Amino acid sequence: MVKLRCVEFRAGEIRWAERPMPELKPGEALVKPLLAGICNTDIELLRGYYNFSGVAGHEFVGLVVQAPGNEAWEGQRVTAEINIGCGNCAWCLTKDARHCATRKAIGIKGWDGAFAEYLKVPVSLLHKVDDALSSEEAVFAEPLAAALEISQQIHIKNSDRVVVLGDGKMGLLISLALRIFNGDLLLVGKHQAKLTIAAEQGVKTFQLKSPYEVKQVLGNYGQFDLVIEATGNPQGINDALDLVRPEGIIVAKTTSHETSELNLAKLVVNEITLMGSRCGDLGLALHFLKEKRLNVLPLIEDVYPFDRFEEAMARACQKGSKKVLVKWEK
Amino acid sequence: MVKLRCVEFRAGEIRWAERPMPELKPGEALVKPLLAGICNTDIELLRGYYNFSGVAGHEFVGLVVQAPGNEAWEGQRVTAEINIGCGNCAWCLTKDARHCATRKAIGIKGWDGAFAEYLKVPVSLLHKVDDALSSEEAVFAEPLAAALEISQQIHIKNSDRVVVLGDGKMGLLISLALRIFNGDLLLVGKHQAKLTIAAEQGVKTFQLKSPYEVKQVLGNYGQFDLVIEATGNPQGINDALDLVRPEGIIVAKTTSHETSELNLAKLVVNEITLMGSRCGDLGLALHFLKEKRLNVLPLIEDVYPFDRFEEAMARACQKGSKKVLVKWEK
Repeated sequence: MVKLRCVEFRAGEIRWAERPMPELKPGEALVKPLLAGICNTDIELLRGYYNFSGVAGHEFVGLVVQAPGNEAWEGQRVTAEINIGCGNCAWCLTKDARHCATRKAIGIKGWDGAFAEYLKVPVSLLHKVDDALSSEEAVFAEPLAAALEISQQIHIKNSDRVVVLGDGKMGLLISLALRIFNGDLLLVGKHQAKLTIAAEQGVKTFQLKSPYEVKQVLGNYGQFDLVIEATGNPQGINDALDLVRPEGIIVAKTTSHETSELNLAKLVVNEITLMGSRCGDLGLALHFLKEKRLNVLPLIEDVYPFDRFEEAMARACQKGSKKVLVKWEK
Repeated sequence: MVKLRCVEFRAGEIRWAERPMPELKPGEALVKPLLAGICNTDIELLRGYYNFSGVAGHEFVGLVVQAPGNEAWEGQRVTAEINIGCGNCAWCLTKDARHCATRKAIGIKGWDGAFAEYLKVPVSLLHKVDDALSSEEAVFAEPLAAALEISQQIHIKNSDRVVVLGDGKMGLLISLALRIFNGDLLLVGKHQAKLTIAAEQGVKTFQLKSPYEVKQVLGNYGQFDLVIEATGNPQGINDALDLVRPEGIIVAKTTSHETSELNLAKLVVNEITLMGSRCGDLGLALHFLKEKRLNVLPLIEDVYPFDRFEEAMARACQKGSKKVLVKWEK
């Protein structure tokens, strides 16, 4: 029996394993990963949150090796949506499995991910990567889609006063992506080097010197119509509540296994709208990447061969690390 | 010097006091209260939250005794908006002082309220009470406006699956008010007698037998498009997060001095919108009351003469108490 090598996360540890090659059902494709990104969600999965154990990896570019009945896909370079719905509920029938109650998610829930020599993917989730795009760019399609999701949930106008809190991987991507809709968007973070990445693409930035200073931003800039919370800190939401204007909107991007301690009275009295935002449309992200509306390459921290996955993961876990990529031999 | 009797809240205690009659500036009216309601906010003010000390009382019907320069108001029975803005900011200039950053609020912040023989009110905040309305009905204008505010913030459709959590004073008013927009609105609470008040006006109700049962409601009824959290409990928001559908809306009405412990990841993953909602338009509330679109009279717990204010307040503080009113001699 043909086997594939993969890395499994189990109870906080990374283990190399061999698994049988996946059997393809109709409508499924076998994909050989070329390049994959390590996401903060992967770090949380490794730590055992969400009771995860298995093969992670949901940001990837790969080659379709086999697609029985859909042979036109074979040989194509692809990336993929990650939510696999039941196919029969109202969400799935309207072509959006992101909220299907019984969904699986590639590399996250009930479906093996890309940290392996091969993975299977439903053909319906595949997106062809245009020849004009490098794999290093296309591997950002999934997180960029999550950043762009905000623009699909609310109408971001150029006249809005917009601030993004957090200069981590997601905060940087959000600021680069939403700056397309709002030229004066302000990114607030703690790390000069990261803020510079955004500033070099025209994003206005403000470096926090102390946690208290966020209120000084408020003093300097007035109150914000839209605050995007992407600090990764479950308590960051309280800074957002300080910065948003009455009747303004906060978009929450931080997912954490910890609860947040929230001053809900402030939200009620100021009639704030707090909106959760998760993953988005990879087609839109690829479209933006192809048109070079933003440059994601400065967000890459380093690229490791798959064989050195442990080193890649350790690097990704370092505080302040940008996007760490894993590369397979052709 | 002419004095007025009033009750002051100071450090958790009610004290009778005499104060000089307020001096009227141009545009102000002297109002003699006829009937006032005790709100949960008053209970919090008495307990010293928000560093309050002074004369509370913001739900009232009164007679205009004096209105220099606006004599047409004299002798009119009125109720009033409670937010007094600076008059010069963008909020005030667009005729909505509710979010003016330096606003005062009658009986809540920086302006003496109705638990007194007289109070002064800016003429611009007055609403005439139609002769077709009893004072017992009109005294609900302020809390009813707060309930109706939800209908002004979001578009409530008859086909929406709507649930109101909490059968306290605010939950009951919300269910009676929003049922006008949504015939199948469900009120969930713990007290059969209160649920019956709503049921007698056509509201569907569900009595919770245990705190865990709220998830059974979910099982029975499916997920809700709109969840209105009016439990008065800072942790009630977590029940709301259990009941709302992905991409659904939670409206938060509970204000508490305590913080809420919130599972923000659930909000992010399910892309929930959480919207704060405070006070509303008294004109709209009076219009609904005049047209008898709902009957507020069953919400009255009891009526006490002003001289027995302490008893009235003690009754209002009893857990499960409905609206306690205070009445002045004519």
